[in-house]
Amino acid sequence: MADHLVRFDTAPAPVSVPTGTLLSDAAHRAGVDIQQPCGGQGRCGRCAVRITDGTVRRRSTLRLSNEDVEAGYALACQSVIEADVSITVPPQEKIERRLTTDRTAAEVQVPDSYDPAQVQTVRRVRLTVPPPSMDDQTDDWSRLQIALRKQVRLTEVGISVMQLRRLGHILRKGEWDITVILDSQAWDCPDCPVRLIEFKPGLMEDRDPLWGVAIDIGTTTVSLWLVDLISGEVRAQVAEYNGQIARGEDVISRIIYSSKGSGAEELRDLVLSTINGLLQSACKQVKIDPHDVFKATIAGNSTMIHLLLGIPAQTIRLSPFITAVNHIPTLTGRDVGLDTHPDATVDCLPGVASYVGADITAGVLSSGLDDTEKVTIFIDVGTNGEIVLGNKEWLVTVAASAGPAFEGGGVADGMRATRGAIEEIWVNGDTYDPSYRVVGSVKPRGICGSGLIALLAELFLAGVIDKGGNFNTNLDTPRVRIGEHGPEYVIAWASESGHGRDIRLSHVDVDNLLRTKAAIYAGFTILADSVGIPFEAVEQVLVGGSFGKYINVEKAIQLGLLPDLPWENFYFLGNTAIRGAYQALLDRHARERIKDIANRMTYIELSADNTFYEAFTSALFLPHTDLARFPTVQAALGAPIPQ
Amino acid sequence: MADHLVRFDTAPAPVSVPTGTLLSDAAHRAGVDIQQPCGGQGRCGRCAVRITDGTVRRRSTLRLSNEDVEAGYALACQSVIEADVSITVPPQEKIERRLTTDRTAAEVQVPDSYDPAQVQTVRRVRLTVPPPSMDDQTDDWSRLQIALRKQVRLTEVGISVMQLRRLGHILRKGEWDITVILDSQAWDCPDCPVRLIEFKPGLMEDRDPLWGVAIDIGTTTVSLWLVDLISGEVRAQVAEYNGQIARGEDVISRIIYSSKGSGAEELRDLVLSTINGLLQSACKQVKIDPHDVFKATIAGNSTMIHLLLGIPAQTIRLSPFITAVNHIPTLTGRDVGLDTHPDATVDCLPGVASYVGADITAGVLSSGLDDTEKVTIFIDVGTNGEIVLGNKEWLVTVAASAGPAFEGGGVADGMRATRGAIEEIWVNGDTYDPSYRVVGSVKPRGICGSGLIALLAELFLAGVIDKGGNFNTNLDTPRVRIGEHGPEYVIAWASESGHGRDIRLSHVDVDNLLRTKAAIYAGFTILADSVGIPFEAVEQVLVGGSFGKYINVEKAIQLGLLPDLPWENFYFLGNTAIRGAYQALLDRHARERIKDIANRMTYIELSADNTFYEAFTSALFLPHTDLARFPTVQAALGAPIPQ
Repeated sequence: MADHLVRFDTAPAPVSVPTGTLLSDAAHRAGVDIQQPCGGQGRCGRCAVRITDGTVRRRSTLRLSNEDVEAGYALACQSVIEADVSITVPPQEKIERRLTTDRTAAEVQVPDSYDPAQVQTVRRVRLTVPPPSMDDQTDDWSRLQIALRKQVRLTEVGISVMQLRRLGHILRKGEWDITVILDSQAWDCPDCPVRLIEFKPGLMEDRDPLWGVAIDIGTTTVSLWLVDLISGEVRAQVAEYNGQIARGEDVISRIIYSSKGSGAEELRDLVLSTINGLLQSACKQVKIDPHDVFKATIAGNSTMIHLLLGIPAQTIRLSPFITAVNHIPTLTGRDVGLDTHPDATVDCLPGVASYVGADITAGVLSSGLDDTEKVTIFIDVGTNGEIVLGNKEWLVTVAASAGPAFEGGGVADGMRATRGAIEEIWVNGDTYDPSYRVVGSVKPRGICGSGLIALLAELFLAGVIDKGGNFNTNLDTPRVRIGEHGPEYVIAWASESGHGRDIRLSHVDVDNLLRTKAAIYAGFTILADSVGIPFEAVEQVLVGGSFGKYINVEKAIQLGLLPDLPWENFYFLGNTAIRGAYQALLDRHARERIKDIANRMTYIELSADNTFYEAFTSALFLPHTDLARFPTVQAALGAPIPQ
Repeated sequence: MADHLVRFDTAPAPVSVPTGTLLSDAAHRAGVDIQQPCGGQGRCGRCAVRITDGTVRRRSTLRLSNEDVEAGYALACQSVIEADVSITVPPQEKIERRLTTDRTAAEVQVPDSYDPAQVQTVRRVRLTVPPPSMDDQTDDWSRLQIALRKQVRLTEVGISVMQLRRLGHILRKGEWDITVILDSQAWDCPDCPVRLIEFKPGLMEDRDPLWGVAIDIGTTTVSLWLVDLISGEVRAQVAEYNGQIARGEDVISRIIYSSKGSGAEELRDLVLSTINGLLQSACKQVKIDPHDVFKATIAGNSTMIHLLLGIPAQTIRLSPFITAVNHIPTLTGRDVGLDTHPDATVDCLPGVASYVGADITAGVLSSGLDDTEKVTIFIDVGTNGEIVLGNKEWLVTVAASAGPAFEGGGVADGMRATRGAIEEIWVNGDTYDPSYRVVGSVKPRGICGSGLIALLAELFLAGVIDKGGNFNTNLDTPRVRIGEHGPEYVIAWASESGHGRDIRLSHVDVDNLLRTKAAIYAGFTILADSVGIPFEAVEQVLVGGSFGKYINVEKAIQLGLLPDLPWENFYFLGNTAIRGAYQALLDRHARERIKDIANRMTYIELSADNTFYEAFTSALFLPHTDLARFPTVQAALGAPIPQ
């Protein structure tokens, strides 16, 4: 077997290793310290290094993005030496930062073919208006309309009284040269109405930015992208907790809060102040005035959209679970209360049902599900597990009212994925001791969704809990004990935690998590049954939601949360809702597609009959009553747990 | 000569008088006291009596309406006994009330052919919406839209976010039976957009009233009619001084006030509070909530409309005299700040130019000028004398910036036509003593427009002033004297006046009045010249404006204010602007006609060349430099003044 020279930038000399040696082993030999908190299972991403010369064979690139791989990154524990290579070991802080960066920020590619004049609803036109005289006393507004007709062939232009108030001043300030911002849903229809948003004195350059925002109102997090509609570029990405959180963590508690006293107004004010704060902060980054934002597209679940608009949401919660409105008419900044331009177009994207909202239709768009030949599952993992099954021909959807367990709710030591949250965890099958990764690399204060999924799977595989979720209290470890609420597992001792108390997972917590994963898995089952196809026919699984991005698929399958399909068929797309809102902001054809998606999607109400209850109870086991549905888990259980 | 028996209800016995005896003489013989402040010239209307049996020959019925004559009224000084008659003498107070009644209230006939379903823009439909169920989870708004499509064939219905907020509650309160109020500019076009204004729980009866208001915003007076759109009936008529008066009496001073500091907002608030006060008071009369008013049409001059909407009006005042907007887009009560239903349609009628506004287009409509074969002059006498000449084929218009002299401005003892204003006056040609009629029959405090017209004509005919407006100071009367500002005539001595000071007309006042009347007459001249027709070709003169209603035509001709045409060709129409607004409120075809009028009318700018200046200086005489234009005045000056 041939030997190869491996050079590490942090080692004094290269080492020679045989073909097939793991890169992490070569590092060890060279005296280079590479952390492997997951025990070399390729799952934590901490051992990422960069190949600067030569190549290695990557067995797995989990935790690495395509861009990472292109940039030469490889996981030391998953890469095999097959040639001479030079390797840079990034400082640990740098990896840390990459792993815990703003969970909503994303690289966005503007399509090469993007042509604002072809696809935008908002357009800017430069006009030279003939000035009035004693021989031509036509009023200002008719004068502008005539110029629009003659110079850009627009016949029906609407204007608000607020803009009429500014008109005379702007025309004279620009000495009859003005730039007009217009919005039309159908520029290709010359007789369709066009709405005047704004005019500015003087002739702006065609390349000057024209601003819009894409907004996703999540129950937990609100994200906003500030976009230059001329270039299509995302110029700022900001995100913040939804200010409504203090009034309830999930949609149901928000709806209940909104139906009491001035609750609805209060929730409306809270989310508006979150959005307007984000708008302010994004505009500050780019040094513009929020009033120069002329269009907003908004995604969000149906409850979030209702609460934003002050539309009562009670009927969403009560049988037969009806929204007041799925397709919201086009509104203005003034109507909604946004600090954009008051006449900015505000386009709340359409939803399908009480629990399948605009976040899902936008997500389906940006995931491409509605445009693929492949039978595809799309799931947005959040408080509700909304699932869509289909392809370009057909779409069916369900919402599994999963509850907030995976967002840290209903679990005693659960928390959101913020600083101090355990986000990934491994349990040693011999000692039952855990090793974990904490957001921000500080002492842990609790455990977030991805951590809970990992923990539940690890405890199951290590035999700490059985398939029914019951604790094995006979194990030789102090970590399994009888606590206040029955049996529990200690994840971190008080001395190791950030708040000086034990961090535990109790029997009650496990039950809640089981119910949640069972609800989601039942959703998959119902969907597949509804169209009569087996899971094996599913060609890809697209996982949306910024939370979904951090799920460990292997663990999620071991748990029985995700169906047992090959890993390479899973794609993690991040916040698909805001990507869809961004596409709809830029391109009116994309907006039309979202409308089609909303209209085409068949919504299956899970509480309509007892099919759901059967599927749910069958899924209340780890991974499932019917182990045949999970062949890889069956194999893992039969084989020794990998070290 | 035959004798006839004349019975007065207030006399103990009948009197016998020969054929041809004046009724007033018969009364004198019977010992019945009938007041004749105008000296029996048939001009003051105070001697009106009612013929209860038999007939008299009426030589003149000036000051009597057609209804009065039909009810048997006759002027004692103008009626000749030619048969036996019985006569009732009304108490003086009753006549007083009739003469000084609310100047805007008017009898309005609903056309027999009125069919709201054919002509209204606002419509009410009753819908039974299928309730949702677990098998049909369609959202409320789609559900309503489907019902509208199936039950009334409407495809494009728009709704405000405010109504979306109420939708769910109203549907459930009405147990899925609701009544919807809709507005469409074109009900005959099934694909044209329809706007939802309101829904009410339950099925309202087809005959239940549906409310609208017609509004005329005059510079001085705001009038409002509350109308049941189903029957077409005017159910309340109210009027009030425009709250802006305290900030300037005419449009120019209002515009100047509006351009300083927060002047525009202040003026807007003032007129809104006038309108909303009127709305409140009209609704109170009919015992409805102003929120149940679903449509408003608004007439008013261009400045009033700009100030109402908060649109800067400065360019109206400065050359080249441009409005910001003549055709205002359809607005809502919320947009404008009216206390109607917030989604009520507010239709500001279109104007033509800075000084020919929606009051004139509405006036042309209601006067029927745009629909007659006859060559017609329409004049709205107010602060500005807007004049329209034309017929169904053509329309030309000018605005003579008359100034407020005839509204009491620019005249030292001038005042508006309120309690204490001298509104009609006669000057004795021998003694130069006046007799007059005062609004409210109290001691006089000043003199209003109709009084000024009469006074100027009387002073001219009595020889107190000459054709140039100069006082003859050699007359044997203490009433003509040299005052502070040169020669003046004393109308009422301090002891006779309501405020204990002399009431006078000075040389300066006469100059201002001459300039005003000259501006208006020059308007007539320019109009007739512009189309090349002589005044004799004018077949009728329609005088609008509630002020115009009280002008004494004979005096106005003697002054040279109105052209010298036969009296019977003059028609006094009262407030034509609000009548036009009322017609446009009821009938969308009438509304289309106003738009056509605005588009068809050729506006002639008087300051564009020096034609106006020549016409104006020629008219600065009493009645005119060219006496041939006023044959009847020439005759009156040649003949002794009638006693």
